[in-house]
Amino acid sequence: MFDIAQLAGVSEATVSRALSGSPLIAESTRMRVLQVARSANYQVNINARSLRQKRSRSIEVLIPLATRGRQHMSDPFYLDMLGALADALAARSYDLLLTKRAPWLDGVEKNSIQCGRADGIIIMGQGQDLEELDRFASMYPQIIVWGGHLPDHNYVVVGTDNVVGGKMATEHLMQVGRKRIAFLGDPAEPEIALRLEGYKRAHAENGMTLDESLIYKAPFDAREARIAAEATIEGGVRFDALFCASDVIAMSTVTALRRAEIRVPHDVAVVGYDDIRMSANFDPALTTISQQIQQGGETMVDLLLTIIDGGSASTTLLPPELIVRESTVA
Amino acid sequence: MFDIAQLAGVSEATVSRALSGSPLIAESTRMRVLQVARSANYQVNINARSLRQKRSRSIEVLIPLATRGRQHMSDPFYLDMLGALADALAARSYDLLLTKRAPWLDGVEKNSIQCGRADGIIIMGQGQDLEELDRFASMYPQIIVWGGHLPDHNYVVVGTDNVVGGKMATEHLMQVGRKRIAFLGDPAEPEIALRLEGYKRAHAENGMTLDESLIYKAPFDAREARIAAEATIEGGVRFDALFCASDVIAMSTVTALRRAEIRVPHDVAVVGYDDIRMSANFDPALTTISQQIQQGGETMVDLLLTIIDGGSASTTLLPPELIVRESTVA
Repeated sequence: MFDIAQLAGVSEATVSRALSGSPLIAESTRMRVLQVARSANYQVNINARSLRQKRSRSIEVLIPLATRGRQHMSDPFYLDMLGALADALAARSYDLLLTKRAPWLDGVEKNSIQCGRADGIIIMGQGQDLEELDRFASMYPQIIVWGGHLPDHNYVVVGTDNVVGGKMATEHLMQVGRKRIAFLGDPAEPEIALRLEGYKRAHAENGMTLDESLIYKAPFDAREARIAAEATIEGGVRFDALFCASDVIAMSTVTALRRAEIRVPHDVAVVGYDDIRMSANFDPALTTISQQIQQGGETMVDLLLTIIDGGSASTTLLPPELIVRESTVA
Repeated sequence: MFDIAQLAGVSEATVSRALSGSPLIAESTRMRVLQVARSANYQVNINARSLRQKRSRSIEVLIPLATRGRQHMSDPFYLDMLGALADALAARSYDLLLTKRAPWLDGVEKNSIQCGRADGIIIMGQGQDLEELDRFASMYPQIIVWGGHLPDHNYVVVGTDNVVGGKMATEHLMQVGRKRIAFLGDPAEPEIALRLEGYKRAHAENGMTLDESLIYKAPFDAREARIAAEATIEGGVRFDALFCASDVIAMSTVTALRRAEIRVPHDVAVVGYDDIRMSANFDPALTTISQQIQQGGETMVDLLLTIIDGGSASTTLLPPELIVRESTVA
């Protein structure tokens, strides 16, 4: 800073104020100081500070798409959650490092915690690599997983209670008088398996016979979900309601139903899951289960920083919320 | 590494192989080495390496939403572009630092280039802070902006040719026989202003009278766009075609039209912009202008790394592409 002051012909205090954007410094002075600082390759030494503190003040957010058959990144749910995480991290002066490749797929020395690029990792969905994730978490406790609450795992999970959410969606369809409720989603994903569990419980607890042939498999991707929905409808519908595992699947399904001249909700009532922004502006506006994305993002960040600071955190289930719109009530 | 070898009771070569995930090392040995390494707080010293190389090997991707009236982050266009950037950066061994707050809003010492957190910044859309952006770029040349090609600026822009795209969309509507083509979008955004320019040129070059009262303002957000579309329709439509400035606006508009019992494309043909993933799976499937997101992401990363390495780069326009689907042809 002394050198910069000399070169710019100002005091060190002025350099300090100019670099910190103080309003006390005239714009022309600030520009001169900045030019000198830049040409002198001056850096507020974040990397040196990180070394000293053994902290990067970065959190990695992993959307693990390199593993098999995952929710396509274009699902707006991810973007809403990324926005919530970006806000929560920025408010706590942490950077957000976005990655798409699961750390257990590479040599372990490459993961961001080990090499000091991040102080912890938020993993968006446990996906289907449950063993690899568990092994990774046993080595690196500084992780939080957004996903489903499974019985045995080494990591802290934050997510809505998917069983309750699935039950809520199904019971809403029963309450509006539907008798044959189908399910559309991929139970190979832990969260979807739990939503399906809720769907089954709703049947059991309400004395309604479960027809296993009404459980249809559909991937998260909009295009593939539409193809799955079309196959489901082919040759006539055998159901008067559909609980779809995501809003994207629900929208694709409504499109498929409409093309087959099946009216929503008159002939088939449809419930989605996630409450992405577009759901309220769809035709018909989608009934769905809200995942409390803002609160979920904040909770994940708070729990992760607690772990990083040496504290303990435990799996947290957020209450899902039923949002009733036009796709289930005329 | 010597200490870890001692503690784990193996050779230094074994430690090195274990940490780099070599298949030559038995899983049990690898686990033991990792446990020791972790308890010894060993870090492959990324921060030290960054200091030595004066490189962070991170690129900041800025979705500047803290400024006025921007495209809501929930627009899936951002997510598709983020995915493309994440792939392009990972392939070049760079980290992606995601931020939402424009660096010119804070004291300049906080920006990621100045303090060494990132080697450069990719800004998603120039937005409406054109002067601030220009001043920032004059101090930090290591930036690339996704956006519109404006006459005078200090930074390198990558984007589709929005004038050509707007002209393409409008001429397509003329070719399917439409006579009164409305425009829906917010020209305060540079890219939208250019699309509107293309819309005007299409009228001029095809000898079609432009009715300025058919230029309606609509924000990017799905909900607000639907409200704007509803206002446009109220009291009957005065047009037989609509060119919408984004696919999200187009989908919201189709919803509004359908509620008003106006048929798409029979009564009003609709063209969007972006070709987000959901557009092909909408009912009716949207005719739109593709923005070449994958290629755009790769181009931005390549040009930015060229600038960082001391080379020069210039503004690059990608050719837009018309994708014809059901919303304009029955």
